[in-house]
Amino acid sequence: MTKPRLRDLGIVIGTMETGRYNAITDVPDVSVGHSTIIEGDSVRTGVTAVVPVEGSAFSQMPPAAIEVLNGAGEITGRSLVDEYGTLESPVMITNTLSVGTAHRGVIEWMQQREPTLGPLHFSIPVVAETYDGFLNDIAGQHVTREHVFAALDSASDGPVTEGNVGGGTGMNLFGFKGGIGTSSRLVALEERQYTVGVLVQGNFGIREQLLIDGVPVGREITDLRPVRGSAERDPSRDGSIIVVIATDAPLTDRQLGRLCRRGMLGLGQVGATATHGSGDLLIAFSNAPECRVDRFDNSAVLVTPRLNDQRLDPFFQATVEATAEAVLNALVAAETMTGRDGNTMHAIPHDRLQEVMRKYGRLHE
Amino acid sequence: MTKPRLRDLGIVIGTMETGRYNAITDVPDVSVGHSTIIEGDSVRTGVTAVVPVEGSAFSQMPPAAIEVLNGAGEITGRSLVDEYGTLESPVMITNTLSVGTAHRGVIEWMQQREPTLGPLHFSIPVVAETYDGFLNDIAGQHVTREHVFAALDSASDGPVTEGNVGGGTGMNLFGFKGGIGTSSRLVALEERQYTVGVLVQGNFGIREQLLIDGVPVGREITDLRPVRGSAERDPSRDGSIIVVIATDAPLTDRQLGRLCRRGMLGLGQVGATATHGSGDLLIAFSNAPECRVDRFDNSAVLVTPRLNDQRLDPFFQATVEATAEAVLNALVAAETMTGRDGNTMHAIPHDRLQEVMRKYGRLHE
Amino acid sequence: MTKPRLRDLGIVIGTMETGRYNAITDVPDVSVGHSTIIEGDSVRTGVTAVVPVEGSAFSQMPPAAIEVLNGAGEITGRSLVDEYGTLESPVMITNTLSVGTAHRGVIEWMQQREPTLGPLHFSIPVVAETYDGFLNDIAGQHVTREHVFAALDSASDGPVTEGNVGGGTGMNLFGFKGGIGTSSRLVALEERQYTVGVLVQGNFGIREQLLIDGVPVGREITDLRPVRGSAERDPSRDGSIIVVIATDAPLTDRQLGRLCRRGMLGLGQVGATATHGSGDLLIAFSNAPECRVDRFDNSAVLVTPRLNDQRLDPFFQATVEATAEAVLNALVAAETMTGRDGNTMHAIPHDRLQEVMRKYGRLHE
Amino acid sequence: MTKPRLRDLGIVIGTMETGRYNAITDVPDVSVGHSTIIEGDSVRTGVTAVVPVEGSAFSQMPPAAIEVLNGAGEITGRSLVDEYGTLESPVMITNTLSVGTAHRGVIEWMQQREPTLGPLHFSIPVVAETYDGFLNDIAGQHVTREHVFAALDSASDGPVTEGNVGGGTGMNLFGFKGGIGTSSRLVALEERQYTVGVLVQGNFGIREQLLIDGVPVGREITDLRPVRGSAERDPSRDGSIIVVIATDAPLTDRQLGRLCRRGMLGLGQVGATATHGSGDLLIAFSNAPECRVDRFDNSAVLVTPRLNDQRLDPFFQATVEATAEAVLNALVAAETMTGRDGNTMHAIPHDRLQEVMRKYGRLHE
Repeated sequence: MTKPRLRDLGIVIGTMETGRYNAITDVPDVSVGHSTIIEGDSVRTGVTAVVPVEGSAFSQMPPAAIEVLNGAGEITGRSLVDEYGTLESPVMITNTLSVGTAHRGVIEWMQQREPTLGPLHFSIPVVAETYDGFLNDIAGQHVTREHVFAALDSASDGPVTEGNVGGGTGMNLFGFKGGIGTSSRLVALEERQYTVGVLVQGNFGIREQLLIDGVPVGREITDLRPVRGSAERDPSRDGSIIVVIATDAPLTDRQLGRLCRRGMLGLGQVGATATHGSGDLLIAFSNAPECRVDRFDNSAVLVTPRLNDQRLDPFFQATVEATAEAVLNALVAAETMTGRDGNTMHAIPHDRLQEVMRKYGRLHE
Repeated sequence: MTKPRLRDLGIVIGTMETGRYNAITDVPDVSVGHSTIIEGDSVRTGVTAVVPVEGSAFSQMPPAAIEVLNGAGEITGRSLVDEYGTLESPVMITNTLSVGTAHRGVIEWMQQREPTLGPLHFSIPVVAETYDGFLNDIAGQHVTREHVFAALDSASDGPVTEGNVGGGTGMNLFGFKGGIGTSSRLVALEERQYTVGVLVQGNFGIREQLLIDGVPVGREITDLRPVRGSAERDPSRDGSIIVVIATDAPLTDRQLGRLCRRGMLGLGQVGATATHGSGDLLIAFSNAPECRVDRFDNSAVLVTPRLNDQRLDPFFQATVEATAEAVLNALVAAETMTGRDGNTMHAIPHDRLQEVMRKYGRLHE
Repeated sequence: MTKPRLRDLGIVIGTMETGRYNAITDVPDVSVGHSTIIEGDSVRTGVTAVVPVEGSAFSQMPPAAIEVLNGAGEITGRSLVDEYGTLESPVMITNTLSVGTAHRGVIEWMQQREPTLGPLHFSIPVVAETYDGFLNDIAGQHVTREHVFAALDSASDGPVTEGNVGGGTGMNLFGFKGGIGTSSRLVALEERQYTVGVLVQGNFGIREQLLIDGVPVGREITDLRPVRGSAERDPSRDGSIIVVIATDAPLTDRQLGRLCRRGMLGLGQVGATATHGSGDLLIAFSNAPECRVDRFDNSAVLVTPRLNDQRLDPFFQATVEATAEAVLNALVAAETMTGRDGNTMHAIPHDRLQEVMRKYGRLHE
Repeated sequence: MTKPRLRDLGIVIGTMETGRYNAITDVPDVSVGHSTIIEGDSVRTGVTAVVPVEGSAFSQMPPAAIEVLNGAGEITGRSLVDEYGTLESPVMITNTLSVGTAHRGVIEWMQQREPTLGPLHFSIPVVAETYDGFLNDIAGQHVTREHVFAALDSASDGPVTEGNVGGGTGMNLFGFKGGIGTSSRLVALEERQYTVGVLVQGNFGIREQLLIDGVPVGREITDLRPVRGSAERDPSRDGSIIVVIATDAPLTDRQLGRLCRRGMLGLGQVGATATHGSGDLLIAFSNAPECRVDRFDNSAVLVTPRLNDQRLDPFFQATVEATAEAVLNALVAAETMTGRDGNTMHAIPHDRLQEVMRKYGRLHE
C-alpha cells in the first residue's frame, strides 16, 4: 500500500472525517480478501470476498438490503435479502461468467464451517459480478473453487489492496483502468462513533462524464483510451459497478435500503449516468453485534436497538461521500494493464490528474 | 405417462379448456428436459430445464418478468429481468445448494452454442431452486455439469414427465411427496387461440391447509406423514415453489408481471399460506416470435404488437387455474420415496383422494 | 347487528379461533367509523375510517406496510409508508372520485387535534377507494368534509356494522351486492395472545369465480345478476378491494408487508383473479404500543421488540383466513340496493347459499 | 422572462444541446400552467399543472412511470401508474396539505371535459407536493378549487415562468429561496430529433452540499441563511423535490422508469443527499402520439413503436443534465421572499455566484 490514494494526491471528497484506513475494514469485524488471477497473456480476473462478520454470517446474520440503480447484472440472494432483511453469507464479487463457480465455492466454504448447512438448513449466498471481457479471457472460466476459497481464507481487516486486484483485476472505469476501491466515513452520535465503509468493484463510466470532486476531468484528459489489440471487435465496455456498504451503526434493513439509494447519489457525483448495459447494484449491511439475527434463536420476541430515523442524515451524507471516494480510489490505484488479444487499458496519470484539479482550484496542496 | 393425472382421477380445476397435453409445452416452442439423479440410499435430486425458445434464448430474448410471493429462495437473473424485461437463457430449476453448478452449467452450455458469449457479450441466466434435504443428501453436491447439460439436451416438446423427476425428484407437497407438475389453458381471442402453460417445482405446504378444488383434503387425509428414518433432527420441510408461466400471447414484461401475481392467487386456491421459510418465486415469459428482442438488432425503433390490457382477464384466469392444477398434478404424479437417513415421503393415495372428493360432491365420475 | 353473519349461516372459514367480535376492532385500540350517504334515488356512497390508535396516529405512528395485488386504484400515502415504515393518519376509504375530499377532510380533522400539523410538521394521510358508479351518482361528488368528520368522530370499538355502510355503501361483490366486511383471528404465542383483524371494502369479483369455503357458489347461483335500469351503458363493475389488516403483535414494517401478501392469498381463496380494472390494495399495521414511533422522540437509538420471523406462520394463516372471511362477511351482510338510473344489485340469498353449501358437505349445522 | 437563467449567468450544465426554450415545453404538446397565491403577510403558495397532452390525458394516456428516491412525500396515482404504465391526468404539484384540494379540483376539471368520467369510467390523477410551511401559512388551506382550475386553464407551451411561482411559490433550495425550474435536452437519433424536458418543484438541500457544475458553491456562500421572524420554532426545512420528466421519444413505461432513476443521478450532481424528511419523487412520461393508449380502443392487439433499449444512453445523459439544470434554474430564478411570521428566504446572489464559479474556472464568459 505504498501506492498513493486519492487523498495522497491532494484530492478530498466531501467534508466528513474518514476512518483509520479510509476503508470498509474500518467497520469493526468486516474483513476483505482478494484472489487475483493473472496468468499468461489473457487471464486477468479474480474474486473478492467481503466478510461481514467473523466466520461466515450463516448463524449470525446481519441486517441487509439490496437496491438496483441499473439491473444489467447479477447479485444473487436478492429475493432472500428483500424478504428476511438479512445477509447470510459473505459477499462475493467476481466476473460475470464465474458467478456459478463463486456461488458453489462460497457454499462449500460455508459447509466446512457450518455442519448443519445442508442436512438441516440452507443458505442463499450473495454473489455479484461485473464483466471483464476486454482484458480477460472470460469465456475460459479461469476462476476456480480454489480461488474462491483463497479469497475467503485470506480475508483480513486493516488496509485493503485496491486497483487491479481480486474481482476488480480486469475492470475499467471511465475508459481508464479500474477495479477495487474503498473508503469510509465516521459519524459521531451522542456518546458513540459509528463508521460507514464502502467497497466497490468499479467497471463503469463514459470518459466525458467523469467528475472528480466536481471537476470535469474526463473532458480534460481525453487521450489514453482503451487500445484494441488483435481482435476485430470490442466487447462491451460500458460496464457495471458493485457497491458494498457496511456500517456498525444499528440500522434496520429498511434503513440500509435507504443507504443504498444514497450510494446511487455518490455514483451520480462522479458522473455516472448508469448506461443501459451497466449492472449498478448496491448492497448494504449493518454488522452491529446487537442487531444480528441468530439463526438458532427461537424466542418469540426479539428486542433490538435501531437508529432513530431522524438521525439518519449524517449516515446518508457519509454514504454519498464514501461511495464517490471508493470509486475514485479504484481509479487512482489501478495500473495500466494489457490482457487478452493484446487489449490495453491505461491508468489515469496521477500528475495530469493533479494538474487538472489545480487548474480548477480543487487541489489541496 | 400412463400414470393418472389429476383430471384422470375425475378432478377438474376451473372452467377453461386445457391445451393438448395440459402442459407448459402446449405453448409452441417451449420444451422441457429433466435430469433425474437417484443413486444409492441418499441421492434424490436433479435438474429441470424449461427452454423458452428453440436454442438458448441468448439471441432471441422473450419478454419476461419475475415476482416474489415469499422470497426465502433463489432465482438468479432477477435484476436483469426487471431492468430489461427479457429472459436471456433457459430457466433452470434444481436444489438449493446446486444453484452454482446449474448456473455455470447453463453458461457453458450456452457458450457452446453462442460463440460471442464471453468474448463480446455476456448473459445473465435464470436459475431457481427448492430445498430437498429431507430425502436428498443435499450437502453432497451431487448435481454435476453433466446433469445440467443432460437436462438441457433432452428438452423436448410434447408430454412432460411429472412427479419425482428433474429438480423435483426429492421434493414434497403438503406433507406428501411432491415434485414437478404442469398444466395449461387455452384463451381464444378474436381469430387467434393462445396458450398459457405453467410448470412448477412444488415443495411447499402445510397438510391441514391443502385444498383440492376447494375441498379441504388436508383435513381429511391426516395420516401418511413424512417418516423420519435414522436422523435425530428433521431438516426444514416447509418448502418452496418455483412457478414458470409461459405464453405465446404477445404480452409485455409489465403484463407478464401481472400474470405472475395471478400465479400467486392460484397458489392461494390450493391452500398456500407462503410460510416464512418458503421461497415462492414466479417467472413468466412470452415467446411470441414477434415479441422477442433480437440482441443483434440495433434499429433505433422497434415496432411490436402487444395485447391490449383490456383483454387480459382471461389470461389472468388461465394463470390462476393452470398454476393451481400444475401443483396438484405434481402431487398426484409423485410416488412414495425413501431417501437419505431412511426418511420417507408418501404419495397421496389416489383412491382416498377420490373418496374425499366424492364426499364433498367434487368428483366428476 | 342482528343480521346473520357468515358463521351464523353455518359457514366457517379456516381453523383458527376468532376474536370476540370477529372484527378488526378485536385488535385493541382499533376503532371503526362509517358515514353512510343514501339520499334520493341516486346517492349511494360514504366514507369509512379505520383509526389505528386512539387519537390520530399523528404523534404515535404504528409500523405499517402497503402492498398491491393489482394497482388500478388509489391508496395515498404509499411512498411515505414504504420509506418510513409507519402510518401517520387514520385509514380512510371512500369512492374513487372522493379521494380528494377525504384527503383534505382527514387533514383538517387532524389539524384540530394536532396544533403543530401545518406550522411545524406535515402528515401524509392514507386514503383509499373503490368505484361505486353503478349504484351511486359518483360524478355528483356527494361526499363532503362533514361526512369525513362524521366517520372519524363516530369511530368506536366493539362490533362493526357491515354491508351497505360507509365507503362500502354502493359496492358490489361477485355480481351480488357487496360492501364492508370484517373478521379476526387469535394467535397464541407463549404467554401472550395476539389478534389479527381485517376490514375490507369489497367491490370485486366475477360471479363464476366466487368460492365460499372452497365451494363454487358462483357456478351454482347464476341468477340475481345486477339489473340495469334506465341507462344505456353499464359502468365498469369488475371492481376493486381495499384490505386493512391490523394486529397488536409487535410486527415490523417488513413483517407487515408479508402479511399483506397473505391477504392476497386470502383473496385467492374466495376466487379473486384480480381483473385488469381492479384496484386490489392492502395495508397492514401493528399498533402494539411498544412499537409505535413517537414523532417527538429524538433519541439517537430506539429499542423495540419485534416478533421473531420464525414465529410468523400462524400470523400468515390468520391473515389468509380473516381476509377471506371478511370478504364473505361483506357479501352476507349486504342487502339488495337500487340506486342511480334504477340500477339494482341483489344480495346473495342466505337460504340458497346454505343450500349450496349443504350440497357440497360444507354446512355446519 | 427577462430574469437571467443559469446559462445567462455563464454557467452550463453538461454537454448536450438544449431545446428552444430550455424548458419542459420543448417537448411538443406539453404545456405548463401556474396559479401563484401571494396574499397578505403569510400566504405564499400555489399550484402548478404539467399537462402531458392536449386536453386532459383521460382518453389518450401517455406511457408513464414513477420512481422514488426518498418517499417522505406524496405522489398520488402511483399504484395505477405502476400497474397500467400510463398516466391518465395532468400532473398537479402543490403544497403538502393541499393535495386533497388539488386532487378533487383536477377531477372536477376533467369531468367538465370528459362526460363519461364518473358515470362510466374513473380516473386516478397524479398530484404531488412539497412543504412550504416556513414561508406559507400552510395550515390555512389557502389553495382552492379555483386556483387548481386556473393553473390548468392557463397551461401553455412556450417559455415557463420559474422561481416563486405556482406550487413552487414558497419553496426553498439549499437554504436559499427555491421553487419551479425547468430545462431540456435534444437527442438526435437517425432521422429524428427527440426532446427530454424536465420540470421540478425544488424544495430541498443542505447548504454545504450545494454543487453547481461541480463547484462547491454551498461552502463558498455560507451566509444569507433563512431568517426566522417572530415564530419560536422553525418548521422543517429539509424539504423535497418533485421531478417531472417528459419526452416525445417512443419510450415504454419500463424505459421511463429508467429515466426516473437517471433523474436521481442528476439530483446527486447538484449535491442532493436525499435527507430523511425529503419527498424526492420522480415521474416520467412519453407523449409520443403513436405510443399513447386510447382508453376507448378495445382492439385485441395494439402495435406500437418503442425505442430500442440499446439506444437509451443519450436519453439517460439528457435526463441527468436536464434534471440538474432544472434545479439550478429554479435556484437562480427564485427571488428573496418574506412570508408568515416574518420568516425570510434569500435568493442566491447572482454576482456572488458568478464570482465563485469564476474562482473555480467554471464560468463561461
